[in-house]
Amino acid sequence: MKNKTGRTLGVTRRMGELNEVSKNKIFGGWQKVFSHESKELKCKMNFGIYLPPQAENNKVPIIYWLSGLTCTEQNFITKAGAQKYAAEHGVIIVAPDTSPRGCNIEGEDDGYDFGTGAGFYIDATEEKWKKNYRMYSYVTIELPEIINRNFPVLEDKQSIMGHSMGGHGALISFLKNPGQYRSVSAFSPICNPMECPWGQKAFSGYLGDKKDLWKKYDSCHLVKDYDGPPAAILIDQGKADNFFSAGQLLPDKFVAACAEAKVPVILRMQEDYDHSYYFIATFIGEHIAHHVKYLKSG
Amino acid sequence: MKNKTGRTLGVTRRMGELNEVSKNKIFGGWQKVFSHESKELKCKMNFGIYLPPQAENNKVPIIYWLSGLTCTEQNFITKAGAQKYAAEHGVIIVAPDTSPRGCNIEGEDDGYDFGTGAGFYIDATEEKWKKNYRMYSYVTIELPEIINRNFPVLEDKQSIMGHSMGGHGALISFLKNPGQYRSVSAFSPICNPMECPWGQKAFSGYLGDKKDLWKKYDSCHLVKDYDGPPAAILIDQGKADNFFSAGQLLPDKFVAACAEAKVPVILRMQEDYDHSYYFIATFIGEHIAHHVKYLKSG
Repeated sequence: MKNKTGRTLGVTRRMGELNEVSKNKIFGGWQKVFSHESKELKCKMNFGIYLPPQAENNKVPIIYWLSGLTCTEQNFITKAGAQKYAAEHGVIIVAPDTSPRGCNIEGEDDGYDFGTGAGFYIDATEEKWKKNYRMYSYVTIELPEIINRNFPVLEDKQSIMGHSMGGHGALISFLKNPGQYRSVSAFSPICNPMECPWGQKAFSGYLGDKKDLWKKYDSCHLVKDYDGPPAAILIDQGKADNFFSAGQLLPDKFVAACAEAKVPVILRMQEDYDHSYYFIATFIGEHIAHHVKYLKSG
Repeated sequence: MKNKTGRTLGVTRRMGELNEVSKNKIFGGWQKVFSHESKELKCKMNFGIYLPPQAENNKVPIIYWLSGLTCTEQNFITKAGAQKYAAEHGVIIVAPDTSPRGCNIEGEDDGYDFGTGAGFYIDATEEKWKKNYRMYSYVTIELPEIINRNFPVLEDKQSIMGHSMGGHGALISFLKNPGQYRSVSAFSPICNPMECPWGQKAFSGYLGDKKDLWKKYDSCHLVKDYDGPPAAILIDQGKADNFFSAGQLLPDKFVAACAEAKVPVILRMQEDYDHSYYFIATFIGEHIAHHVKYLKSG
């Protein structure tokens, strides 16, 4: 059927600065998708938001989820199974798209790992990309402002998590903004982008050859100067993940950097698990419980 | 990334009569997809199978899931979140595709509700379709034989469930084969296909105008003659389901027919829920628990 994906196609409802693209009841709450015009990205963006039953009458904590390469806001909301746990704990989960779209920049659709679907959660400085590719400012500033204006959020109770490129995004957002997020977790994150092929392609494309600037978006460098809440960083990594064995993720480098900086980190190597949403679905409940521990205290 | 869907593209592993298309670890077990040459359907078919951790060393009960219009074996295994509960209870779940594919029958791809993706779980008698469109015999005879030959199944402990067209498929499979399935459940099933537009299109196309034959695939007629185990039939129906309000599903007709036949049925009308996998994900745990009650007794 046309709405098998759960999207109410062709119907949007205006709600102030937001357009409601779809809404579906799930686990007693609502999984919604909104579109809006982004000032940072100069294009229309979609995000998913799960509103648990507790948000009907109360302000609740919030967790941001950042997705990986090629994803839209749909992957997480249809495949991760997070709504069950968000409903149990009474937290909102927001899942933005992974890049600007349809900006008509030459080359934006040439590869799966650069341009569309691959914003890498950084603010580009190269001429061609710098007008639109500002995903770092979008996910850490513009989007939270929009969410806080429009939904029943406890503004001092937010955390962040993500997968792969989005795990990188979650880690840098946490490390660059001490105190903004109560906790951070990641599935198979790109931990040391300066030293892996995906990161090198993205950083040279968006930032040029300014290696000092690269360090401002690399968790292994950022953790050296981290001076925020001592929330343990939780990372799950599948041992059967092809991108792990190909050296794209490098969690060991991050654990070593954390040890040197005396920042607590928990890296769990998971036997037989791969890079897919089957892996995420298995452990998302534990990640949400991890965040709730920090979100519900104080 | 290419394997974001969890499928290991382009790689298959031969295992007797089956080819392993993909395998992903999830909730301690394995979600696998196999392809095989179907004798009933005269084409290659895919099915998904979740093997819980308990199946490593023991034979376990099994539940069949039949999907709705337009689905492949992928929708259920990526979106329903069933693996968590299957792992908890130690049951295998098998999810076949919804029709033969690529049979080169003129018109097979003309609509979403007839032909490809719309086998309706019946054995066609019309000349054009009768060679390939034998989904009833496929899901009730050929597929269980294949599964029982190749996986650690307790053969006398099987149940069946499904969604929409697949809810119809589950109901008729249960009612036509007393004792073969311990229990049946359905999400938003097509309960009275002879009296709704989807069913009328499918039945006239596959079966011609033989109304007596139509009754052999309509739950509201089949229940009159049901003489099997008294397992309560569980049905969940969303009140905000567009196909319910359009008269495609007709659960009230089935409840009335069950009452007349003195067959126990539980119809739960769920406020605000629609026809999507968000609805299925919310209640799949309760459906699996329902089946386990019958599968684990005796």
